[in-house]
Amino acid sequence: MADTSVHIQALKKMLAANELIVDEQDMAAFCLDQRRRYQGKVWAVVQPTSVASVQAVVKYCFEHAIPITPQGGNTSMCGGATPSDAVAGLGIIVSLSKLNRVRGVNVADNCITVEAGRILQQVQADAAAAGRMFPLSLASEGSCQIGGNIACNAGGVNVVRYGPMRDLVMGLEVVLPNGDLVEQLTPLHKNTTGFDFKQLLIGSEGTLGIITAATLKLFAPVKTHVTAWVGVNNIEAAVLLLQTMQQHFAERLSSFELISAFALDLSSQLLQLQQPLQAPWHVLLELTDSTDNSLLQEQLMQVLWDAEFAEAVVAESEQQREQLWSLREHISEAQRHLGASIKHDIAMPIGQVATFIHQCEQVLQAAYPQATLVVFGHLGDGSLHYNVFMADILSNEVYQYETDINALVYEQVFAVGGTVAAEHGIGQLKTQWMPYMRTAQELALMQTMKQSLDSKNLFNVGKVLP
Amino acid sequence: MADTSVHIQALKKMLAANELIVDEQDMAAFCLDQRRRYQGKVWAVVQPTSVASVQAVVKYCFEHAIPITPQGGNTSMCGGATPSDAVAGLGIIVSLSKLNRVRGVNVADNCITVEAGRILQQVQADAAAAGRMFPLSLASEGSCQIGGNIACNAGGVNVVRYGPMRDLVMGLEVVLPNGDLVEQLTPLHKNTTGFDFKQLLIGSEGTLGIITAATLKLFAPVKTHVTAWVGVNNIEAAVLLLQTMQQHFAERLSSFELISAFALDLSSQLLQLQQPLQAPWHVLLELTDSTDNSLLQEQLMQVLWDAEFAEAVVAESEQQREQLWSLREHISEAQRHLGASIKHDIAMPIGQVATFIHQCEQVLQAAYPQATLVVFGHLGDGSLHYNVFMADILSNEVYQYETDINALVYEQVFAVGGTVAAEHGIGQLKTQWMPYMRTAQELALMQTMKQSLDSKNLFNVGKVLP
Repeated sequence: MADTSVHIQALKKMLAANELIVDEQDMAAFCLDQRRRYQGKVWAVVQPTSVASVQAVVKYCFEHAIPITPQGGNTSMCGGATPSDAVAGLGIIVSLSKLNRVRGVNVADNCITVEAGRILQQVQADAAAAGRMFPLSLASEGSCQIGGNIACNAGGVNVVRYGPMRDLVMGLEVVLPNGDLVEQLTPLHKNTTGFDFKQLLIGSEGTLGIITAATLKLFAPVKTHVTAWVGVNNIEAAVLLLQTMQQHFAERLSSFELISAFALDLSSQLLQLQQPLQAPWHVLLELTDSTDNSLLQEQLMQVLWDAEFAEAVVAESEQQREQLWSLREHISEAQRHLGASIKHDIAMPIGQVATFIHQCEQVLQAAYPQATLVVFGHLGDGSLHYNVFMADILSNEVYQYETDINALVYEQVFAVGGTVAAEHGIGQLKTQWMPYMRTAQELALMQTMKQSLDSKNLFNVGKVLP
Repeated sequence: MADTSVHIQALKKMLAANELIVDEQDMAAFCLDQRRRYQGKVWAVVQPTSVASVQAVVKYCFEHAIPITPQGGNTSMCGGATPSDAVAGLGIIVSLSKLNRVRGVNVADNCITVEAGRILQQVQADAAAAGRMFPLSLASEGSCQIGGNIACNAGGVNVVRYGPMRDLVMGLEVVLPNGDLVEQLTPLHKNTTGFDFKQLLIGSEGTLGIITAATLKLFAPVKTHVTAWVGVNNIEAAVLLLQTMQQHFAERLSSFELISAFALDLSSQLLQLQQPLQAPWHVLLELTDSTDNSLLQEQLMQVLWDAEFAEAVVAESEQQREQLWSLREHISEAQRHLGASIKHDIAMPIGQVATFIHQCEQVLQAAYPQATLVVFGHLGDGSLHYNVFMADILSNEVYQYETDINALVYEQVFAVGGTVAAEHGIGQLKTQWMPYMRTAQELALMQTMKQSLDSKNLFNVGKVLP
């Protein structure tokens, strides 16, 4: 580590004072992941305020073979933004937090160009201020950043209608590992001019370069929301309800969330809110319309009635709607009070969800009678948050069982053709599972792509690739 | 060419009799592009009936360094599916026409898996038979194939609502240039497990591998169509109409086609149909709803009235709707009777379309007073078909002017931040324009990707890359 002080001097020369952090204490928050499971070690955190600063730093690091961990809002659930042990003490974090301006709104082409560090919630507000809507919405939207959302191909509650982040990106500006800038910020709706390189960056989790800005699709604002809470006896009934909604309301179905009775118990206790109804499983669904549609609520109630979903509450006011959503959105926070859990971000074909939930519960109960499940998620796109708590086991001892429990759960996921990285990415938490989801040929292809773009293997080392 | 007979013998051994064509006359149709501008030369056409056959042939060609031109419905407007001069007589065409089965329909996950050679119109019918809708729709849908649609990231008339082909692909099965099979056919709606390799194949025009099958998104069928023909005095009014429609009807706007008076003259004469109305410019627009929506037609008429679009015809019957669409869809055929034209498949930011049309017309009229323009296209996504005819010049002499006219037109396109390959791809027609649309760094990246996947440079040589 003899060179570190030389490098720090070099970085000081090329950066403004507010772009460089070298104090251990000031760096601490950047080095710890939000679940406090990964503790990285770096000798500097760079917070560029311009693309030129990003390029200068990346070029310097390329020349001196210094590992870089790109970081957005540091909300990764998989240690994706925290330096891995493979580069402990060897490199730097490049935080995009201060590269966070709106570059422009283009109403005619329904798009907005923002820098990578802009917080998701701000982008939602920017769109609203322009009379438009940006649909990505997820639990950490108050602190996660657009660049990270793109790097992880984020999902969330509106994927049913608007797709994941990949579907919302029109263009990217990227600093490659060698410091080259690739600028594909474009408002073109049709453009077939060779390989669409930016698609490789989407979902690459910082292993192929640093996203510095993006042009994002905007949509017409929603004028009509109809939100319902429906109780069902089992998963099969929830899947039937989903198909009924798609049949009658098609693209107006914008959210379809599954919540177990126990998950609802947790969040209703935390919020001190009454539960909308009692049932073994709950569905929070929302229909949206970009026109004023006064008939939609009645249509929904009629369809629920005709299909014999008797246990249903339809929000009668905006306040009631917010309460219903609040119950869903506070599950993650509420379960933290239970202690640590073994979390699974899984997805599978929708027709297989019931089979998976039954089989996986049986397998877990047989092996761990004290296991408690908190199950919720986006049934509308087949993705579940499947979290295992262990009663009578101290919080910090739960992780002793993680390897075994993961193996049990993931075996069931793979058995139904699912993925164990639905919307949180691979990070450093799940690299060992890649060979179960990608063939040897696909993994070899990924290595080829990685080698082509990051020839010195400096970017987010120890992530994604097994 | 001493080896050709040896290669033919080898192919005969690995293929069934109906998978191999070596007769010159039988090969002729595969070697000529649909615009009769490119005449390729090969020593065999292979029509595999299985993925195993594709792999066997590709492996053999890889070993013996034999160039391959992948071909779908051979409807490329840019010579993309016709062997280039660079490989004249050296290689083979692999036609996917006989690899055309439906592998399966998955209603729960709203998707269909089909083989590459399936004709687009058949896929539309397959979806309809399952109570669903596949939205890609374009002029050559009766003969173009899904694999080609994906390879060229096809667009068409429904992009405003459903996006181009890229947005409709959930998974691909691909044979790489070395014969390896990469299978990413999946019904997963969320899946973030490393680089999304299939995205590189979409829009690669056969230069990176052969797509053998795809899993495609399905949608709820449209239950309500409201179709209007609106006359406007100028492009500015057409853009204003587009914004009015988006403001009031948002995603219900599924088509917004601009048609010049002259383009309408041509197709109405061909079809011997009366013109819906007289105006300098015409817009064919369609609102669709996946629910029965009896109010939509009246709402549209009210909005047109309020916004003072007085020259408007709203289709009162399915027959009338079909007639309106027929006028749009027969422009290409009708203009062929005018003789050869210099065609431009361009797109630009929607806010720039009026500027472009004015400036480009001025430039062309100054240089070529005898030039006649046939302008039509998908204004809703900023893309235009901009075709230049030359009065008093014999059809086969028009192309003498192509280089000069392209330079004039494309200069105007680039001036407004547009692309000269909106939805037909690059093929061999437009490779020289790539450096005007992609930076040197992007082109270098594309070469890196090409080299990684097609190390012997055998696949669709002379296409896409400059």
